[in-house]
Amino acid sequence: MSNPFFQNQGPFEIDVINTLLKINSNKISSVKKIFDIKDLFSATNKDITFFHSKKYSDIAKETKASFCITTETLKGNLPNHCIPLIVKNVLLSTSKVTEKFYPESINDNFDASVTPIDKTEFKEKVKFGHNVLIGNNASIGSGCSVGHNTIIEKNVSIGNNCSIGSNTIIRNTLIKDNVKILDNCVIGKHGFGFFPINNQNLRYPHIGFVLIEENCEIGCGSTIDRGSMSNTVISKNTFLDNQIHIAHNVKIGENSIIAGQVGIAGSSIIGNNVKIGGQAGISGHLKIGNNVEIGGGSGVIKDIPDNTKVMGYPAKNIREFIRENK
Amino acid sequence: MSNPFFQNQGPFEIDVINTLLKINSNKISSVKKIFDIKDLFSATNKDITFFHSKKYSDIAKETKASFCITTETLKGNLPNHCIPLIVKNVLLSTSKVTEKFYPESINDNFDASVTPIDKTEFKEKVKFGHNVLIGNNASIGSGCSVGHNTIIEKNVSIGNNCSIGSNTIIRNTLIKDNVKILDNCVIGKHGFGFFPINNQNLRYPHIGFVLIEENCEIGCGSTIDRGSMSNTVISKNTFLDNQIHIAHNVKIGENSIIAGQVGIAGSSIIGNNVKIGGQAGISGHLKIGNNVEIGGGSGVIKDIPDNTKVMGYPAKNIREFIRENK
Amino acid sequence: MSNPFFQNQGPFEIDVINTLLKINSNKISSVKKIFDIKDLFSATNKDITFFHSKKYSDIAKETKASFCITTETLKGNLPNHCIPLIVKNVLLSTSKVTEKFYPESINDNFDASVTPIDKTEFKEKVKFGHNVLIGNNASIGSGCSVGHNTIIEKNVSIGNNCSIGSNTIIRNTLIKDNVKILDNCVIGKHGFGFFPINNQNLRYPHIGFVLIEENCEIGCGSTIDRGSMSNTVISKNTFLDNQIHIAHNVKIGENSIIAGQVGIAGSSIIGNNVKIGGQAGISGHLKIGNNVEIGGGSGVIKDIPDNTKVMGYPAKNIREFIRENK
Repeated sequence: MSNPFFQNQGPFEIDVINTLLKINSNKISSVKKIFDIKDLFSATNKDITFFHSKKYSDIAKETKASFCITTETLKGNLPNHCIPLIVKNVLLSTSKVTEKFYPESINDNFDASVTPIDKTEFKEKVKFGHNVLIGNNASIGSGCSVGHNTIIEKNVSIGNNCSIGSNTIIRNTLIKDNVKILDNCVIGKHGFGFFPINNQNLRYPHIGFVLIEENCEIGCGSTIDRGSMSNTVISKNTFLDNQIHIAHNVKIGENSIIAGQVGIAGSSIIGNNVKIGGQAGISGHLKIGNNVEIGGGSGVIKDIPDNTKVMGYPAKNIREFIRENK
Repeated sequence: MSNPFFQNQGPFEIDVINTLLKINSNKISSVKKIFDIKDLFSATNKDITFFHSKKYSDIAKETKASFCITTETLKGNLPNHCIPLIVKNVLLSTSKVTEKFYPESINDNFDASVTPIDKTEFKEKVKFGHNVLIGNNASIGSGCSVGHNTIIEKNVSIGNNCSIGSNTIIRNTLIKDNVKILDNCVIGKHGFGFFPINNQNLRYPHIGFVLIEENCEIGCGSTIDRGSMSNTVISKNTFLDNQIHIAHNVKIGENSIIAGQVGIAGSSIIGNNVKIGGQAGISGHLKIGNNVEIGGGSGVIKDIPDNTKVMGYPAKNIREFIRENK
Repeated sequence: MSNPFFQNQGPFEIDVINTLLKINSNKISSVKKIFDIKDLFSATNKDITFFHSKKYSDIAKETKASFCITTETLKGNLPNHCIPLIVKNVLLSTSKVTEKFYPESINDNFDASVTPIDKTEFKEKVKFGHNVLIGNNASIGSGCSVGHNTIIEKNVSIGNNCSIGSNTIIRNTLIKDNVKILDNCVIGKHGFGFFPINNQNLRYPHIGFVLIEENCEIGCGSTIDRGSMSNTVISKNTFLDNQIHIAHNVKIGENSIIAGQVGIAGSSIIGNNVKIGGQAGISGHLKIGNNVEIGGGSGVIKDIPDNTKVMGYPAKNIREFIRENK
């Protein structure tokens, strides 16, 4: 699937990429043109990929990519058809190549393509408020309402029977049927990802999107950031209360309930039927199982297995928390 | 008092209610029409009420309602003039009946009745910014200012000498004199109340409103949800800082001071002269006494008596907190 | 420097000030007119200052001010040329005099001076969205973009190559080059400062501003309050994530990274190269050193020296936190 939100500026000759990464390569490949940058698993023989950690060795061995940004140490895991491009910092180099393909993914300026909704096809089928703006190529299903001052940016797709509140901004997002997004939300801006560099940090391009599945509700003043290379996902029938922050690449399962002011840091995976109490925080890159309950105010800093109730900071089994705090 | 914000679609014949709740009743009542749904205490002989927990038995014995949604176990507490409608899940059935009377309370879509303020009577008496929208039958007192892009929805009432910021949305709210509401707030949307049901949760109708008394200030980016059947109340001269979340049915007393990013969960009652430090959280259904001080970052999970200082997670007496954390 | 944001209504005769503070003074000064109110250090012989705590005695001895609001106990520290105005509550009296000079600093109503950007000089040089409003005397550099519904209030100054999101409000703020402010922010409103008085609190005038230096990024839904008498400062290349609250007078050093939902209370000073994890809170009037790392969810209630890693509530050395929570 081509990226629905960011225009691919490729293909590029491999020499252009080598120059960008300051690589002197004398490897010869029958493939001269690169069409896209993808992860090890998704890449085809037209693409470049990246490989930065031993824990992905098994996937690396099977990659179909023709080129791979990696290190001297890791390159031995790649199959013969995949030419390694050896760099010092794989993620930094991947960031540069991603920006080359998708330069717009890094700026994240406002969408200048928008039109007032009453000048678009949607004026007939959508119930809309004052000052609603719709970006190029956005789609909105039947039975939807969109509140005052709300901005639906380009290529955003909204299903049937959705209700979008007022003063809300939606970009780089796919919304399924019967979803309710309340007022003052910002959905789909880039995540908080960059390389810290003294004097001027280097922003990481975020080319993923936000997927909100059927029957979800997102409370007022919430922010959901889009994914970096994968996507941020809110699965079916999950309800979020007000002032919640969901960082990039987070995936939340079905039928989950998340109370006010909760924050979930980047790349954490939350299971199905999970309940999270108000103001709880979940660190990045964690796995929270199915049917987990997390007490209000908890700080979760490690994985939680299925069917577990936790509370505290750091969060522990709730029986232990209660015993220690009698 | 009739509900100032949601139009009552009643009266309904009792047979209509019985059908809605799938009740086969052969009880005969001289009352055939039901005009409203109210709590046990407020209901008159024209109304239906509900009774779901033993702890309300004393009030149930005195109710004036002609009908009451309740269980086989609880019905014995009702007076003879009150016919019990026996159901399995009282709150779920109450939700259905409430929605029947007040269908708009469940949708919470944007207010389509609004008019730009310069086309209304308020253009003479209110100092207003660009793109201000005013709903049907809203009222605004003298000496008020309303900032840019702010939306005052239908039936909202604002007293004298109030200052409303920009990008703020106010619905289902009564505001007394000399109140200041800053920018980017959302006041009066429905609370986070629903019956969790796999695949598609059932929203609970919230027919209460928000009452903000004289001399209050509400900081930027705050959200105050309206009550479910009772109201959410911010009493006189109470100041809220930025990014605060007040859930449905919460009542905060007079002269209280609540610092940034505090969250108060549903139905908690906060006393007068209470001070709450930044980022503290208060669980639902608690009673916090008068003159209480709650330290920043605390997590309050039980009632707090008058004149107490607490801190910690879970919050404890501040002397104990300091001793344990030396 | 004259205050760039609030118009000084002075000079005032000293008799006017004495009357305002209900002081019967028979002290004679050659200076009759007061031009401004400033802190002990900044005041010139044309100004009035204030002195409310022994810890400022050394600065008080050197003040150049001609008048000083202070107490009977403290007045002995003032030099002979500085006439003490003796009051019971120094800060309350200072508040009254500040309000006399800068009456607009206390109201903080929306800026009624704004013009749609397409009616201003900026329509040629700025890339702008729909419904953008620009206040009197605001300045915007080259290469900037300003999103939909955003309000740049009077006297705000924005450097070159800045990107301002949509639905954002900026007032009383100086922004340097290459700064990115995302959607739904409120920058520069007055801080949460007032004298608690039963029935009607007395607001403290906040005449400082917000300074955001080069290369900073401010995430969606964040609030940064302006200073009271000094300024709130975000130094070069510091990045803030979403939903962060920075209170009045806070100063954050260079190259710092602050994750989502962090709150920093009034007057705290944060060093350079500081990393703060999500949802951490920092109490007021603290000093956080350079190269400090604060774990997510921490509650910091005392100063932290340079080069320290802390975590917990209350925050302690991270080794201690890990040992205690194994």
